[in-house]
Amino acid sequence: MSLLEKIDSPADLKRLKRSELPKLAGEIRRTIVDVVSRNGGHLASSLGAVELSIALHYVFETPADKIIWDVGHQSYAHKLLTGRRDRFPSLRQHDGLCGFTRISESEHDAFTTGHSSTSISAGLGMACGKRLKKESEKVISVIGDGSMTAGIAYEGLNQAGGLHKDENLLVILNDNDMSISPNVGALSSFLSRTLSAKYLQGFRKELGEFLKSLPRIGDDMYKFAKRSEESFKTFVTPGMLFEAFNFDYFGPINGHNLNHLIDILQNIRELSEPVLLHVTSKKGKGYAPAEKNPVYFHGVGCFEVETGVCVRKGVSVPTYTNVFGDAMVALGASDDNIIAVTAAMPEGTGLAKFAAAYPDRFFDVGIAEQHGVTFAAGMATEGFKPVVAIYSTFLQRAYDQILHDVCIESIPVIFAIDRGGIVGEDGATHHGLFDLSYLRSLPNMVVMAPKDENELYRMLVTALKHDGPIALRYPRGSAVGVPLDTSPLPLPMGKGEVLTDGDDLLILAIGSSVREALEARSALSDEGILATVINCRFVKPLDMALIGPLVERIPRVITVEENVRQGGFGSAVLEGLNDAEVTGFRLRRIGVRDTFVEHGPQKALRSQYEVDAQAIIRAAETMTDSMNDKKAASCV
Amino acid sequence: MSLLEKIDSPADLKRLKRSELPKLAGEIRRTIVDVVSRNGGHLASSLGAVELSIALHYVFETPADKIIWDVGHQSYAHKLLTGRRDRFPSLRQHDGLCGFTRISESEHDAFTTGHSSTSISAGLGMACGKRLKKESEKVISVIGDGSMTAGIAYEGLNQAGGLHKDENLLVILNDNDMSISPNVGALSSFLSRTLSAKYLQGFRKELGEFLKSLPRIGDDMYKFAKRSEESFKTFVTPGMLFEAFNFDYFGPINGHNLNHLIDILQNIRELSEPVLLHVTSKKGKGYAPAEKNPVYFHGVGCFEVETGVCVRKGVSVPTYTNVFGDAMVALGASDDNIIAVTAAMPEGTGLAKFAAAYPDRFFDVGIAEQHGVTFAAGMATEGFKPVVAIYSTFLQRAYDQILHDVCIESIPVIFAIDRGGIVGEDGATHHGLFDLSYLRSLPNMVVMAPKDENELYRMLVTALKHDGPIALRYPRGSAVGVPLDTSPLPLPMGKGEVLTDGDDLLILAIGSSVREALEARSALSDEGILATVINCRFVKPLDMALIGPLVERIPRVITVEENVRQGGFGSAVLEGLNDAEVTGFRLRRIGVRDTFVEHGPQKALRSQYEVDAQAIIRAAETMTDSMNDKKAASCV
Repeated sequence: MSLLEKIDSPADLKRLKRSELPKLAGEIRRTIVDVVSRNGGHLASSLGAVELSIALHYVFETPADKIIWDVGHQSYAHKLLTGRRDRFPSLRQHDGLCGFTRISESEHDAFTTGHSSTSISAGLGMACGKRLKKESEKVISVIGDGSMTAGIAYEGLNQAGGLHKDENLLVILNDNDMSISPNVGALSSFLSRTLSAKYLQGFRKELGEFLKSLPRIGDDMYKFAKRSEESFKTFVTPGMLFEAFNFDYFGPINGHNLNHLIDILQNIRELSEPVLLHVTSKKGKGYAPAEKNPVYFHGVGCFEVETGVCVRKGVSVPTYTNVFGDAMVALGASDDNIIAVTAAMPEGTGLAKFAAAYPDRFFDVGIAEQHGVTFAAGMATEGFKPVVAIYSTFLQRAYDQILHDVCIESIPVIFAIDRGGIVGEDGATHHGLFDLSYLRSLPNMVVMAPKDENELYRMLVTALKHDGPIALRYPRGSAVGVPLDTSPLPLPMGKGEVLTDGDDLLILAIGSSVREALEARSALSDEGILATVINCRFVKPLDMALIGPLVERIPRVITVEENVRQGGFGSAVLEGLNDAEVTGFRLRRIGVRDTFVEHGPQKALRSQYEVDAQAIIRAAETMTDSMNDKKAASCV
Repeated sequence: MSLLEKIDSPADLKRLKRSELPKLAGEIRRTIVDVVSRNGGHLASSLGAVELSIALHYVFETPADKIIWDVGHQSYAHKLLTGRRDRFPSLRQHDGLCGFTRISESEHDAFTTGHSSTSISAGLGMACGKRLKKESEKVISVIGDGSMTAGIAYEGLNQAGGLHKDENLLVILNDNDMSISPNVGALSSFLSRTLSAKYLQGFRKELGEFLKSLPRIGDDMYKFAKRSEESFKTFVTPGMLFEAFNFDYFGPINGHNLNHLIDILQNIRELSEPVLLHVTSKKGKGYAPAEKNPVYFHGVGCFEVETGVCVRKGVSVPTYTNVFGDAMVALGASDDNIIAVTAAMPEGTGLAKFAAAYPDRFFDVGIAEQHGVTFAAGMATEGFKPVVAIYSTFLQRAYDQILHDVCIESIPVIFAIDRGGIVGEDGATHHGLFDLSYLRSLPNMVVMAPKDENELYRMLVTALKHDGPIALRYPRGSAVGVPLDTSPLPLPMGKGEVLTDGDDLLILAIGSSVREALEARSALSDEGILATVINCRFVKPLDMALIGPLVERIPRVITVEENVRQGGFGSAVLEGLNDAEVTGFRLRRIGVRDTFVEHGPQKALRSQYEVDAQAIIRAAETMTDSMNDKKAASCV
């Protein structure tokens, strides 16, 4: 029996001898690599946090003590140690364990995470709560150095530093010098302590000259000089920054040395004040391919354990992300004004090629969506055409900046919104199901979604020609496989496209749902129900000149979108018809009902949450049944 | 002729002798005090920035050089110096000058501001743009120390520090030790240099002991010790923080000393790299009442110039803010679990009384809405009932935290959203016209808006009893004047209230629009049109059990809200009717059309943007005219 098999709860872990823990770490690593090689997942971060997870559960008592894993993608070892070993093979699978921490999944998950940099804020809230309740349990926020580039982390640190000193909060900075890609920004170099050199040199020089000016005075002076230098060293390190925020600073210590980790955590456990422990770790630790290429193994699909080689399913169709990335490179060649902005996602957004081709015009702002959007607005006022490429779910962080810094003055910033709709295995925190609703409520904003990769390309061209805020939103995963135009033309603003004709039913679809609509149309025509399918292309402005007369002609309407129904595309159609005073129609809105979508394969989720072709077919059948009933009734 | 009267542009300012500038500063101050005493406005911040504004325009050349005034509420002197002197008496008035900077108002306003802390991001974007265009003009971001508590400012600094060193960006930290209220958080004490003491003491002690251990060596050692102390002082001051972000740091210098300001700005003008200039200033400078009470005079209504005494218009009706504040104090007395959270707005949100009564349960997180919401979620997981009181417009900053940290796990956080709807003189950046749309699209969220102050009180009671995320949204300004229940009861969840009966028209209203609906109802009944008026109370869940049958009975429907029409309350009614398959009605949605609302008195704006009783009456008349036409037609 392996050590891991004996652990059904953190209490079982505490029964192990310290000397057994490295063996346990090895078993955990093998389990993680094995399951992620089959299910895909966040491998490198979780491998880097194995010893830290063991040490925390060896020293602290969850769920009484609270551990908040920032982002949550490093929590696999934590899951294995907290009663979820048996279910671990279901990681990220439909109805299986979530790839992030979830309050609703385990009492050991103190907070639900997914988006970065929330752990200090949530932890501080818990610590303040415990202080008021006079509870002495510890709250522990584990945050990566990448997550420290986000504003909310700083806001949390700032408040923590201004509060009572008796909040029982331990922030563990898990410093691996990476976010998903290598880190950017000042904080990164600060953590690397490059700063210290500058000040130390100045001090050394001054001290040296002073010493030269003195008569020889022996060992005392030498000792003082050494001591001063030492105190400077501690002083001009990350400790300085965090002491500035009134945290007691410990570290940096090696995050893979279990003995050191346990010793220092045991000491810190006795303190009751804000403490920052700086741990250095290696992303991908213990699995050679991931250590070698931590960016690739940050979030990975299936791979061969022996080689680390990705298991490809023989798909030759490019992803929307790739098409976007290539289009940016192509368009950037002839227009020096095109700028690309990403928030710590050069690979994920497909912009890495643009960065390589035009390094001067590529800006990675760090995990800082708010700043990224306002930064882009600033560039646009200088006449550039910034393309801000951010996943739908993360763009939610910049809602106010889109509204306030871009839309009020109608500044031409282009939003390339990847991972719109259901994203699959990353689950509830990552689906992009709200963007159509919140973007279309903003004045001056144009909102588009392409039916295929060539339309994505044309929408990007359209956006670059448009003088105002404009968004194109496309899904995660493989595109359709259509050929790309060599000289893509812009689309006419606010115009939809008639794809099929039919008098029985009108299907208004947007974005990836156009494919579902066409699939449904095909099945329905076999049943003798002929549908007109419209690719609306624009959620805003909506093509009411096309839609209004069509609805009057074909008063059985289905709208389809991969977005929440509240305020979404279908709602825009209802508003448009109402404003145009079109009446006498029946309309069914296909979209995600008022709930959060869990994790699983995209196809399974589309079926479960009823936004696929089958859902359209069912809706169509109900509507045309009642139509036939009415026909039958009128014939009587 | 005064000096100010000679200045029609910054070029005219440059013709003045340096010795004349203090006189000009006095004239500007008197003009600002005079106009603000009549129009209301942001007095204290603008008085504190008079010399800085003069110095900047004396040294730099706008619009070629760019000045971004963070928030923009300190920009009155800037407006007076940049061709807007004649229009200055129209400040904040309908069709007059905006109280903040607007790209659309003047070429000298480099960026549109209103929400805090965007200036570094926008300025960095402009500076990067200028670098790419090889333009040497300077970009200057003027930011207060209060604004530095917001995450986006930190995100901007972080990126700036990681970029090329040749961005021509000057950040001026205008440090007055206040945001609107006294500042909170670690950064504040850091800027006050309290930190230095700790390190200096340690160093002094060590140095002192060392000196004692040495034979007397005269002046050299003394000088070295002094020099070391000096270098430590610079070192352990704000300079340290900003040098950490790779800015060259200058200061702190007195922000009211024109000669010093001009000298240092002239020197900095020659540098082409990121520079941070730390300026200390006094809020309210030069006007005794404002110096004495800068919190009150931050944003102020009309007042008597001689005394600084507020000119009250003899209204005895309390504001919604006051009622909310008093209700929190009353409810907090019997429930220790109630927590109040504000983002730098204890006075503005009415929570100052709660803070005084229950200091342990009051948390001012600084200008940090993102953190504030997640912090509240953390407290809620510990069993507390956090009430997060943030203005509608500023809550936009926390959109993602509401969705991701509160709604996904349905954590019971209460959002008390003040300044919902049209706020008046603060204008486009400050109206709260999007919250109904974006909040109702979030699963698990309950959205309420009260018709009067007693209903506000009852909604707060309702929210405290509810086990999930819930928002109550109320307007700026005076409440209705109804008496308050002594023991307010919770409202039935998701239930509307029938206010009047009538078979000609159905008016569905929410929040403050209920008053407009009743006023319209009254006028319409004089014309013989009898309307049923429903106070819906809940935007979500919507009372379709009430609304559906009513619409079937009275198929002429008007919805009224002070929110954008896209995705708002009226849109929710359309969705609800569509889902319930109610057909055969006509519906008009009264709400702000797809545009940003400018500044002016609330009443005038409600009229201009057609969300008042008159707009309801006009809509009703059109609908009932056509009804009468139809009646007439059917009689033929």
